[in-house]
Amino acid sequence: MSGPTRLPRYAYLGPAGTFTEAALRQFAGPDEAEYVPMVDVISALEAVRSGRADFAVVPIENSVEGGVTATLDTLATGDALVLLREVVVPVSFVLAARPGTVLADVTRVSTHPHAWAQCRRWFNVNLPVAVHVPATSTAAAGALLADLAPEHDPGFDAALVAPLSAELYGLEILAEHVADNESAVTRFVVVGLPGALPAPTGADKTSLVVHLASNESGALLAMLEQFAARGVNLSRIESRPLGDLLGRYSFSIDAEGHLADERVAEALIGLHRVCPHVRFLGSYPRADGAVTEVAPGTNDADFAAARDWLATLRRGC
Amino acid sequence: MSGPTRLPRYAYLGPAGTFTEAALRQFAGPDEAEYVPMVDVISALEAVRSGRADFAVVPIENSVEGGVTATLDTLATGDALVLLREVVVPVSFVLAARPGTVLADVTRVSTHPHAWAQCRRWFNVNLPVAVHVPATSTAAAGALLADLAPEHDPGFDAALVAPLSAELYGLEILAEHVADNESAVTRFVVVGLPGALPAPTGADKTSLVVHLASNESGALLAMLEQFAARGVNLSRIESRPLGDLLGRYSFSIDAEGHLADERVAEALIGLHRVCPHVRFLGSYPRADGAVTEVAPGTNDADFAAARDWLATLRRGC
Amino acid sequence: MSGPTRLPRYAYLGPAGTFTEAALRQFAGPDEAEYVPMVDVISALEAVRSGRADFAVVPIENSVEGGVTATLDTLATGDALVLLREVVVPVSFVLAARPGTVLADVTRVSTHPHAWAQCRRWFNVNLPVAVHVPATSTAAAGALLADLAPEHDPGFDAALVAPLSAELYGLEILAEHVADNESAVTRFVVVGLPGALPAPTGADKTSLVVHLASNESGALLAMLEQFAARGVNLSRIESRPLGDLLGRYSFSIDAEGHLADERVAEALIGLHRVCPHVRFLGSYPRADGAVTEVAPGTNDADFAAARDWLATLRRGC
Amino acid sequence: MSGPTRLPRYAYLGPAGTFTEAALRQFAGPDEAEYVPMVDVISALEAVRSGRADFAVVPIENSVEGGVTATLDTLATGDALVLLREVVVPVSFVLAARPGTVLADVTRVSTHPHAWAQCRRWFNVNLPVAVHVPATSTAAAGALLADLAPEHDPGFDAALVAPLSAELYGLEILAEHVADNESAVTRFVVVGLPGALPAPTGADKTSLVVHLASNESGALLAMLEQFAARGVNLSRIESRPLGDLLGRYSFSIDAEGHLADERVAEALIGLHRVCPHVRFLGSYPRADGAVTEVAPGTNDADFAAARDWLATLRRGC
Repeated sequence: MSGPTRLPRYAYLGPAGTFTEAALRQFAGPDEAEYVPMVDVISALEAVRSGRADFAVVPIENSVEGGVTATLDTLATGDALVLLREVVVPVSFVLAARPGTVLADVTRVSTHPHAWAQCRRWFNVNLPVAVHVPATSTAAAGALLADLAPEHDPGFDAALVAPLSAELYGLEILAEHVADNESAVTRFVVVGLPGALPAPTGADKTSLVVHLASNESGALLAMLEQFAARGVNLSRIESRPLGDLLGRYSFSIDAEGHLADERVAEALIGLHRVCPHVRFLGSYPRADGAVTEVAPGTNDADFAAARDWLATLRRGC
Repeated sequence: MSGPTRLPRYAYLGPAGTFTEAALRQFAGPDEAEYVPMVDVISALEAVRSGRADFAVVPIENSVEGGVTATLDTLATGDALVLLREVVVPVSFVLAARPGTVLADVTRVSTHPHAWAQCRRWFNVNLPVAVHVPATSTAAAGALLADLAPEHDPGFDAALVAPLSAELYGLEILAEHVADNESAVTRFVVVGLPGALPAPTGADKTSLVVHLASNESGALLAMLEQFAARGVNLSRIESRPLGDLLGRYSFSIDAEGHLADERVAEALIGLHRVCPHVRFLGSYPRADGAVTEVAPGTNDADFAAARDWLATLRRGC
Repeated sequence: MSGPTRLPRYAYLGPAGTFTEAALRQFAGPDEAEYVPMVDVISALEAVRSGRADFAVVPIENSVEGGVTATLDTLATGDALVLLREVVVPVSFVLAARPGTVLADVTRVSTHPHAWAQCRRWFNVNLPVAVHVPATSTAAAGALLADLAPEHDPGFDAALVAPLSAELYGLEILAEHVADNESAVTRFVVVGLPGALPAPTGADKTSLVVHLASNESGALLAMLEQFAARGVNLSRIESRPLGDLLGRYSFSIDAEGHLADERVAEALIGLHRVCPHVRFLGSYPRADGAVTEVAPGTNDADFAAARDWLATLRRGC
Repeated sequence: MSGPTRLPRYAYLGPAGTFTEAALRQFAGPDEAEYVPMVDVISALEAVRSGRADFAVVPIENSVEGGVTATLDTLATGDALVLLREVVVPVSFVLAARPGTVLADVTRVSTHPHAWAQCRRWFNVNLPVAVHVPATSTAAAGALLADLAPEHDPGFDAALVAPLSAELYGLEILAEHVADNESAVTRFVVVGLPGALPAPTGADKTSLVVHLASNESGALLAMLEQFAARGVNLSRIESRPLGDLLGRYSFSIDAEGHLADERVAEALIGLHRVCPHVRFLGSYPRADGAVTEVAPGTNDADFAAARDWLATLRRGC
């Protein structure tokens, strides 16, 4: 498709200036990668499936809002994609406007509804007159301010955006650190086509989607016991409706460890047997670098010793 | 506050014409209740807490999108509220416009981003030229079409709204049954202040919020075993981030049965002991009327017989 | 049956001089109790049922041999009996003979088969010529040596007996500390009719017999979870065949704690519901005085707080 | 050691005429095997370890009395032995005497104490005057009657023996079907040195001895979950004291299935990891021929499919 010097193409949730772009910049600068902003998460992921991009960068979980539905659901179905890396970005907005605007002028604030929801109390306290003007993304609100000729009213006075947005679009910052929860972060994932897995580091995660055989709590217990029986801890478990009926769920799971670890591999073998559907979404290094605690009897040497013992028994000695 | 003939006041997610109002109309007609539309879910629930409304009607779960974050989180913290009833409404949109507009004219469609997300494939197939113009709610888009003088451009050509909206606002329906998933439904709950519980019917649900003692999968197993040890089945379990750190969750749970059932009461006693935080969100009839299957040894008579036996042992006979 | 000054009557596994009598002497001297030696464990227990004795003292478990079948089975069926106390006695035999006998003379040793089994290796090493002459009890062998006129051959040269036996029967000790396992002990229980339970001491045991609903390992897990869900630890679990078919078992269980403890009471209520048969065999102080470790969330105050909370919920406030 | 025509040597719990010999005759007639009666179970098993016998036949479980301590404990420690076959024999005694004796003459009955215990109620009803004269085995009592010259008093009038004993020793049967429990059976096992395992038949058992990591009920649950996680059912679980201290146990287990079954192999691998000691005692056909019920997701094909899937994931496709 292109010569050897082609930069890797990263599709991401755009437009330019989103928190997603900030995540992408953490590991691949604009001179190391071709940035391909996409209109939504689904489009970014589909760009990888179709080959139009090599990788996608999308938000998967917010510490306040929880899992990002579109990401979880697009990964869970359709052609296989795997997670290759995760990046955590603090969610701190700025209130930005065209040069010359002052805070006292602002009565209409445009941003994505989720961003508005995360700053609602801040506005109640600091700018109670503000009303929300919905935008399709935070960056879209910033872009509109920058793009329209000054004589046109964009329909709002300021945009609630990522700091990167204000910088890219040459906007003036009226307020920084706008957030109801100062420690809020969003976790982004880098997604690619299945291929060689990232090497295990000892501080890894394995992501899965699992359906249950039935709707009973016994089925959830049986699923969790496949992890417990091999000493595999979960760092995230999230239910998602299957979409066909109320009361039918799949579970989106992050397990501690790497597919190359025997305990993780055995747990997956168990899940494959007892659950009607299991999708592997990748093994990759944790953003926080926390080394996995391995319970006694569950490291690779323990599995190897047990298998050797079994082989000896089967040979009859 | 008002005389004996005052109608009960229902705060709901407005404006007029939302699916939430459609839910409210299922059990309390406009002549039986005072309808109080609110700008968002949080405001509707706070209206009950402050006494400005007697009840609130809010969406809690969508069969496609999953739990409604704002509802779950507002119920989980702050002053106590309880669920009194649930109502399930099919989510089927209509595309509505000012009289005289025809489908071929439509290139800009206004609606809430969630509604747009649920009809994205329908538009790809049926109206691929359409672009999304965000609105703060589906009904707000409809109201704007109705309110603006005909000579003003509202910025869009049609609104994607609930059927009730089109009717209330006198709009013309350009397309019916607009939905990517024809069986999609939304579950709404009626919320009030704590008080006498709805009487058990044999087809009830009990809603809870539970925090875990630690982040380990063992803690989740221990919590689920409190239900399993009393034969209580779960119809929904959903994790929600605690908001302070990635990787800390609470669980929003619907258990089958009523607080008046011994098995449910015993499970709650167990949860109260082993979990750092348990919030009771009510026992109320299931919308689907499905009678709870009671496992052998777990009906009230079994508990009574076991307690009588224990009392006899303690008396030493 | 007798005046107020009557001493309590203790039936025990006799004849005089058994380890059982040694256990009895630990807590009730001959001037404090009437000793009633019985021919076997069943007779001793039946003497309590019939009123011919106030209490029975019988062995229930040996650290080498395990549970005493006759005791476990007689307690498990028939009219109710309860354990009131336990006493642990070291099992150290002496080889005893008529005065004048020396070790080199001994080729025939009489004792109960179980005693012989526990000293088999000792004899292999120290007196390999010895053959076993079975007796109905260790003390019976000693008694026969003492009772027969010197000119009669009892059919053996020495008796393997409890130290108390040699003392009571005026025998000469040829070897002390005869045992294959020097730390072997036997646990005895004092059994009475149901009545006021011994007061809780914080270092108690509760004994039970439990049948399972089915033969599946799931039924055993379900039974154990009734204990685990209340944080009750087991110090002994022993299977006993039900006697009707191979593969059907009851379980004889010692749980840590007292029936007066809420966590024990709740576990029993759970067992009563899920198991087809549960027999309570008493709550009594542990012989070793080991204070029960109470897991977080499982002491009486935790149960009381949880019940108060539940009552508040049910009242609707 | 001998030529090609040497018959296999079977050590068994003798003397001639025991129920154990009856078990041996079920599968190897006197012309197909060399019978080597041994004085006790330990000697029979040691004869295999030392090479003096090819196989041993010993009782392992009685439907009334439970596990045979000496067998379980000798198999659990020392050089490895494996079970190759099981044989179930109804335990029905006959009361036998020298020709000429009639039932009315009998006041002294010789037999092994276990046999006496199993017929105690029968004698209470049918021959209440009878007193027990202990013997080292049932057959020993019969042999003594047959061996002594008629003018010598063996010290008893009749022997309670296996039907085979009466036949071999030419005794007269005074009463048949002597037993308190008419359906009582004893299970015998054929034991050999480790070697090729008996081929799987679909109706197999696997016997194990397992120690627990700690004394807590959690450790027992963790052990049982290794079976449950692979859908392996247990047909027998029996605790045995470890002999060092009261309250420390090992578990003697019969699991349904064969070591060649993936689910059994995986459960053993799990046990080897989480338990400090696991001893494999063989996989062999069940005497009752009951075909193992295999739960969904636990047959060999399920394991193979799961492993193939895992291998695919690890290759990154």
